[in-house]
Amino acid sequence: MRVIPIRTPLIKPGEDVIDVLLVHLKHMRVHNGDVVSISSKVAGLAEGRIVKLHSILPRSHARLMARTYHLLPSFAQVVIDHADRVIGGVPGTLITLKNGIIVPNAGADQSNAPPGFAILWPKSPEVLAEKIRKAIRKELHRNIGVIITDSGFIPGRRGTVGIAISVAGFDPVRDERGKPDLFRRKMRLTRVNVADSLATAAQVVSGERNECIPFVLIKESYVPLTSIPAKKLTRRLIMRRSQDLFKHHLT
Amino acid sequence: MRVIPIRTPLIKPGEDVIDVLLVHLKHMRVHNGDVVSISSKVAGLAEGRIVKLHSILPRSHARLMARTYHLLPSFAQVVIDHADRVIGGVPGTLITLKNGIIVPNAGADQSNAPPGFAILWPKSPEVLAEKIRKAIRKELHRNIGVIITDSGFIPGRRGTVGIAISVAGFDPVRDERGKPDLFRRKMRLTRVNVADSLATAAQVVSGERNECIPFVLIKESYVPLTSIPAKKLTRRLIMRRSQDLFKHHLT
Repeated sequence: MRVIPIRTPLIKPGEDVIDVLLVHLKHMRVHNGDVVSISSKVAGLAEGRIVKLHSILPRSHARLMARTYHLLPSFAQVVIDHADRVIGGVPGTLITLKNGIIVPNAGADQSNAPPGFAILWPKSPEVLAEKIRKAIRKELHRNIGVIITDSGFIPGRRGTVGIAISVAGFDPVRDERGKPDLFRRKMRLTRVNVADSLATAAQVVSGERNECIPFVLIKESYVPLTSIPAKKLTRRLIMRRSQDLFKHHLT
Repeated sequence: MRVIPIRTPLIKPGEDVIDVLLVHLKHMRVHNGDVVSISSKVAGLAEGRIVKLHSILPRSHARLMARTYHLLPSFAQVVIDHADRVIGGVPGTLITLKNGIIVPNAGADQSNAPPGFAILWPKSPEVLAEKIRKAIRKELHRNIGVIITDSGFIPGRRGTVGIAISVAGFDPVRDERGKPDLFRRKMRLTRVNVADSLATAAQVVSGERNECIPFVLIKESYVPLTSIPAKKLTRRLIMRRSQDLFKHHLT
């Protein structure tokens, strides 16, 4: 597998992220089955999903959360407004459920946002992933996978890994249950979360601060392409509650 | 970043895993700063860390766990014996704390073990990682990073990602706090778990069943090499309790 960072000039609010991506991909060898990863921050910024914190009036719950977890009250209000639910927090971060995914601050981020602003996730990460996939098929005549990524957590582990907040064009979970192991017995618990794994690999090369690497091209990951809609594929990444190790605690 | 699977003949109990690895690496271009990943299963197998399930007498707690989570009672006993603590379970798997890490079944695995046996983690994953690092330095004259990997979970997500159960030779957490973002403000919450990320990338190419890919060579991940002992590096991956999002629930 090859994980290739795509460095771009600074992307500004409202810029067409798909155009920028296509311009860069045209200079690279893109093959059917490649996967392109786009950071949720750049995608949100390009959609103009930025909030002026100064204009937000924090309510009492947000002020309490901000005090407890050392946040700007207006930022806490933005997080509460955009989360499905606030699960808890650590100093500097609220832990939230957003689109059924556990993420910091409901995907809102002050880092790499213009001063005084926070960037939100794109309006619909699934719709955007599908749109990018179709644009690449139309312009470059290639069938590739698309993921939009943010940071996620492994419980008890220091530091973040990547997480796919949406996926288009490929099956995001490799299911090996029922296939034979080395001794030809059937495997039991073995599904690999390929989409989050690719998001994690992309995070290693893209950095999190001023690197200007909003896109990553992943080759030879051998994901199985599919025409199933992005919305359905993205939902496949979410654990059924009966199988979720952390359901009693977190959702 | 390039993530290169290393296919080998079937490794048998007691075989010298370092010899097998060195033989294969000698035929590849290995550079200073590369990282090699070894599956905990193969490492455990090579150390002869296998348990004959038939010879295990399950006690009442193990029998209860086995009933609740649909496991072989003798396997449940093995898991209990080798876990620091059992946190919970889902059908087919106990969720445990082992060496301070949340992993399925305390790292014990019936898949890819000889029939009637379970494979355990290597006795000391840190000691083994350090030993492998030193052997490569001695034989190939290269300073590289080493990780020993197992499967981990992101809460609420279907399928596993990789996790580094030990690390030698490089700093496993990339700390970007205090560094400037695109707008030259200091970053707050941004540490990337590079070791787990590389383990996850390795898992994408190595598969989980009969692929015979016990090793993965990772190039151009630009990890910072260090001579800090593996035990200390591996401990860096574990969240301090005050910072742990899940501490109230899981540990």
